[in-house]
Amino acid sequence: MSYELLVEVTRNNTVESRHFGAAIVCDFKDNVIESWGDIEQLVFPRSALKPMLAIHLVESGASEHFELNDAELSLACSSHQGEQMHQDLVESWLDRIGLTEDDLACGAVLPEHTESAHKILASGQQGCRVHHNCSGKHTGFLTTALHLNISLDNYHEVEHPLQQLSLDILSDLADIELKQYPMGIDGCGLPAPTMPLRQLAHAMARFANPSDLSTSRAQAIYRLHEAIINEPLYIAGHGSVVSELNEATKGSVLAKSGAEGVITAALPKRGLGIAVKIADGSERARSVALLAILDHLDVLTNEQKQLLKNHITPTIVNSKGIDVGEIRPAKSWLPI
Amino acid sequence: MSYELLVEVTRNNTVESRHFGAAIVCDFKDNVIESWGDIEQLVFPRSALKPMLAIHLVESGASEHFELNDAELSLACSSHQGEQMHQDLVESWLDRIGLTEDDLACGAVLPEHTESAHKILASGQQGCRVHHNCSGKHTGFLTTALHLNISLDNYHEVEHPLQQLSLDILSDLADIELKQYPMGIDGCGLPAPTMPLRQLAHAMARFANPSDLSTSRAQAIYRLHEAIINEPLYIAGHGSVVSELNEATKGSVLAKSGAEGVITAALPKRGLGIAVKIADGSERARSVALLAILDHLDVLTNEQKQLLKNHITPTIVNSKGIDVGEIRPAKSWLPI
Repeated sequence: MSYELLVEVTRNNTVESRHFGAAIVCDFKDNVIESWGDIEQLVFPRSALKPMLAIHLVESGASEHFELNDAELSLACSSHQGEQMHQDLVESWLDRIGLTEDDLACGAVLPEHTESAHKILASGQQGCRVHHNCSGKHTGFLTTALHLNISLDNYHEVEHPLQQLSLDILSDLADIELKQYPMGIDGCGLPAPTMPLRQLAHAMARFANPSDLSTSRAQAIYRLHEAIINEPLYIAGHGSVVSELNEATKGSVLAKSGAEGVITAALPKRGLGIAVKIADGSERARSVALLAILDHLDVLTNEQKQLLKNHITPTIVNSKGIDVGEIRPAKSWLPI
Repeated sequence: MSYELLVEVTRNNTVESRHFGAAIVCDFKDNVIESWGDIEQLVFPRSALKPMLAIHLVESGASEHFELNDAELSLACSSHQGEQMHQDLVESWLDRIGLTEDDLACGAVLPEHTESAHKILASGQQGCRVHHNCSGKHTGFLTTALHLNISLDNYHEVEHPLQQLSLDILSDLADIELKQYPMGIDGCGLPAPTMPLRQLAHAMARFANPSDLSTSRAQAIYRLHEAIINEPLYIAGHGSVVSELNEATKGSVLAKSGAEGVITAALPKRGLGIAVKIADGSERARSVALLAILDHLDVLTNEQKQLLKNHITPTIVNSKGIDVGEIRPAKSWLPI
């Protein structure tokens, strides 16, 4: 298992911590354009799969039947932060399909968005299932199940027809048979498949340019592109690198994060997919690595880089509000 | 910069994430007993220095003059979690020396102890300086300054006589001149010195067995041993690995954590010091690595291992309360 030093964390210009990882850029024909570290290693893509896990919602006709709008489709692809806007949309969507929070299989948690979590605690409330970053994905699964008239019972279990359908779709995009690979359970209770990092990038490249997939699947993917581009704040939330990157790049980059240091991007205009795994699972390093790769590929304009400055090289601020260090790409792997 | 794979994070028995790092065990004569990875690398020990940063408090006579008890001395060495017991003791100590929270130079934060933080938010309050994990250390500095009749102004700045004294004491224990090494600013505003990882272990070995230091310094260190052993909950808090390890081992291990993946231990009976740096700065990996080393050194009894089970191989529980994985020492580096 080989990794490359991807990201450094400094304190007063001295390196304090180091993040190793692997990364790959490939095209939708599965040609490796560039790679760093061992790209054949098995990874759990976790929530990076969500845009692909929302394909069933459109392809099955459920989205059209229930008249889902861009915000709801973006939310189905999301790891949302549990802000009020996310909570409101999950609740109104559930209500429209005749279900409630109790139908969601994910656990009750506080929002990941700190201010929202503090507000909830200050008002004497607790976390709930709607606040879970996966509640949009779960609502999507329930919507498809209703449309296809499949039982909602244990819809999160790997044996359920919906999860089998999802694994088939993911296998189609990744060009491997996922059921033959190890599988775990995700934070929200759904199956957590594994695949080589290379296959994750390949799947994202085919999500970027689905012309080699069936027409119905390709059309569903184009519909999801549109939703993510039009409603970037519903795929993550205010201040998040994923929402701000997707918003700033106006469709040239569709990024999605996954737990334990995973981040991916689909570049529709170029037909490219990018997958990054930070070995240690760190959240702070994955986006710095992805943005360095995007810059290396000349994807970002100067204006976009200005907008994304705080994500490209985040500043570390201490409890007194003093800038004490930064998170930056290591100089060794990319000729920046 | 070479690192060893120290800790693995699994999901359903498949490795999901990997933590690399360096570690060393040395004796108080600076003989390296065992090491993994590059031990000459420069590290910021951060809060791992706190027990050594409390020496001035005893050696100056301030502790005796102000009649500090074991709990207060343990708190001076602490990264406390901001539980009510910690808050109460910082406040009563400040009050006894005629000062208030406003005299602390650290920033206002919420407690690191989740339940305590939630309780504060639910009661409509905000974070404060007393909740800062370093407030015990700061109160210690203020106590020494009062006793030595040094100005309290800017006591946290590197130029202040107290910080110069602290750097001299640390340099004595680490056997190097710290002022010649890079220095940053810590989360609480105090200087954050650097030293080779090897010197950090050496300093901890001399903290474990200070017989080569001056008599007054050695006596101060023995007094701190006593305080940490008698009041382990004041050096960190309930449920923390540091407090529970120090409590369970009843004086055979004095552990202290530092930010960005650092953890150290002094083994007084054996005159050994241990220092671990997880390259990526991860908190979850440092204690698993330290406990694996302690087990490797046959320091822990079966009864202690039973008590510390949840820290030796922590279980990962998802939002539904299901065990989905674990954090464990990698098999490659230690013949366990």
